[in-house]
Amino acid sequence: MQKKIAILGSTGSIGTQTLDVIARHPERFRVVALAAGTRVVELAEQARTYGAPLVACAAETDAAALRAALPAGTRVASGAAGLLAVAAESGADVVVAATDGAVAFDAVFAAVERGARIAVANKELIVAAGELFVAAAKRSGAEILPVDSEHSAIFQCLVGEPLERVASIVLTASGGPFWEWERAAIEAATPAQALRHPTWQMGTKNTVDSASLMNKGLEVIEASRLFGVSAERIDVLVHRTSVAHGFVIFTDGNVKAQLAPPDMRLPIGYALAYPDRLPDRGRISALEALGATPPATSATLGFEAPDVERFPCLGLAYEALRRGGTVPAALSAANEIAVAAFVEGRIRFGAIPEVVGAALAGTPDERLTLESVRGADARARSIAREAVEARSVASAK
Amino acid sequence: MQKKIAILGSTGSIGTQTLDVIARHPERFRVVALAAGTRVVELAEQARTYGAPLVACAAETDAAALRAALPAGTRVASGAAGLLAVAAESGADVVVAATDGAVAFDAVFAAVERGARIAVANKELIVAAGELFVAAAKRSGAEILPVDSEHSAIFQCLVGEPLERVASIVLTASGGPFWEWERAAIEAATPAQALRHPTWQMGTKNTVDSASLMNKGLEVIEASRLFGVSAERIDVLVHRTSVAHGFVIFTDGNVKAQLAPPDMRLPIGYALAYPDRLPDRGRISALEALGATPPATSATLGFEAPDVERFPCLGLAYEALRRGGTVPAALSAANEIAVAAFVEGRIRFGAIPEVVGAALAGTPDERLTLESVRGADARARSIAREAVEARSVASAK
Repeated sequence: MQKKIAILGSTGSIGTQTLDVIARHPERFRVVALAAGTRVVELAEQARTYGAPLVACAAETDAAALRAALPAGTRVASGAAGLLAVAAESGADVVVAATDGAVAFDAVFAAVERGARIAVANKELIVAAGELFVAAAKRSGAEILPVDSEHSAIFQCLVGEPLERVASIVLTASGGPFWEWERAAIEAATPAQALRHPTWQMGTKNTVDSASLMNKGLEVIEASRLFGVSAERIDVLVHRTSVAHGFVIFTDGNVKAQLAPPDMRLPIGYALAYPDRLPDRGRISALEALGATPPATSATLGFEAPDVERFPCLGLAYEALRRGGTVPAALSAANEIAVAAFVEGRIRFGAIPEVVGAALAGTPDERLTLESVRGADARARSIAREAVEARSVASAK
Repeated sequence: MQKKIAILGSTGSIGTQTLDVIARHPERFRVVALAAGTRVVELAEQARTYGAPLVACAAETDAAALRAALPAGTRVASGAAGLLAVAAESGADVVVAATDGAVAFDAVFAAVERGARIAVANKELIVAAGELFVAAAKRSGAEILPVDSEHSAIFQCLVGEPLERVASIVLTASGGPFWEWERAAIEAATPAQALRHPTWQMGTKNTVDSASLMNKGLEVIEASRLFGVSAERIDVLVHRTSVAHGFVIFTDGNVKAQLAPPDMRLPIGYALAYPDRLPDRGRISALEALGATPPATSATLGFEAPDVERFPCLGLAYEALRRGGTVPAALSAANEIAVAAFVEGRIRFGAIPEVVGAALAGTPDERLTLESVRGADARARSIAREAVEARSVASAK
């Protein structure tokens, strides 16, 4: 039976790769709804190609153009109502949450509440309010499946296992472009330097987060929420070649690991097909599975302890996770402001953790609710903007 | 609820380590029957310590001494009937098959037929007649759980997974003491040299098999039987540090691996506790899980393609697996004869694959049945003995 798929953020990197996976498996998956922000020409093209009966974009002005471009009978919606329609009214079995930031919060929450499977590529949602999503999923029976490589790795290692026997989990990190750099050089790094990621092709925000290891910090928080494991039981190892993505260490001393080539279509395909797996990759050799390229006759996997001295963002993320409540939401929001300011050349790379640290210091310990998380997000952004001003390279001149 | 455990071969290495695991978890496991060959003093001691109500030894003459040494009411049996009583009449939930060779064949088969879980440490049984055991288990609902590290690794990687999505499996091999040696030196190796295994403490036969890679060849056959995977879909990688024990490569391109310290109590505990896991190992760090010793801040896992030129036994095992029928039984039987002759100094190390090859050449392609497998075993031993004579170091002098 075909699974009905809805995609929030269909024109982004994860969205288009999800459509790639669906195109290869028309017998398994069918697109029932697509939502994108402003790239409406691309969105219309996708909707025609995949025969999506429901399409949503951000602005009502764009919706009119979409209606004109699509076959009669296609439902076109816009704004928050459009996202909600795609996530909930589409009746999709799987909702792929691949928008940036918090725009799809309510839509994804509604999909969880109606018991759909959520394939989450939007880690900010889980970082900020993972406990609320997980609690709602428990009530409705919704499944939350991660669509990034590290959390997909952990999810795969946990399949069929008794969760109460997990001693700890380990996420790997590529280390980013600055792993071998001295602290002073990292602090003075330019945006162009930060955007050279060694193994993965990603968006600007993710790539800068990889360079600061904030990306891994956010993933530690996400892992804690998705798998119910506390900060002390989540470790990070730097693994430069990004072949192994995660480990689970069980209480009996056995360890399971997951490895895969750096191709997002693997965790996407897994999240769509689970508990089955797709049958479509060719036979690969044992050494290829370990990252070797033929005709190599050996493969080596190296792992190193991370370094929070040179990469303070990782430490800040652990601090936010330990404090809990709305602090992770504040961390994520402040980091967005800091990274944007860095990419615009307004602050040094070394100021990113300073800006985030200021936001954490200004965030009270409070219970996480749908209201408090919005307040914390707004407050953290405001503190971060002030902190950016105070550290502005321009104003220092 | 306590699981009732019976052990065939309780005074051997796997037997005593099984009792170690049971001793640590009296709330989970209870010994209901023990069988050993001739070490009856040790057996009586075990029976008293664990309160086993049923005990069996090889010779009826030893049984009398056992009866005298054990509390009134303990049932003591001997010979084939004794093994059968321990495996079947004990009503054990789990029968640990840890005897050498074929002595416990009928007893283990009876335990499979009554639907017990079999924890198999006796790989010769599965190599020779795995298809018969697996077919009987399918009929009765018996579970066959492997108790060596590589097959436990594969079993653990398959938990909760769709078996039809396995593209291939990979067993790791330590490479043994001769991995870096030239072919001529290997062929002339002495028993003392062959018995120096780099990572595992094992019995003589297993250690010599490790040096020739026949051990890995037998494991390839065992894996094929246990997991229903053909010869072309089983790979071997040499991994000198024995941290990772096996990999499963799925059809969707994802790979799962299992890692563990070289301690047989881990796969034993897993086979007893499955589908649960034991809770008793302390917290280990991420780097320790990868084989590093504190205070190391990095870990490296290396893998190499195997070499059937220098290690022809591995190629012979693949040949036996491809031919099927009773050929694997002939391989295993001839290898026993060859290894014993090598350890006694009667043949060179390089003659082991020659002797085994002669037995394979003399084995017809025939269907595997409970009768044909015994015939093939006897014929292979006879051919192997002649081949040993022809290659005897003494007669060459």
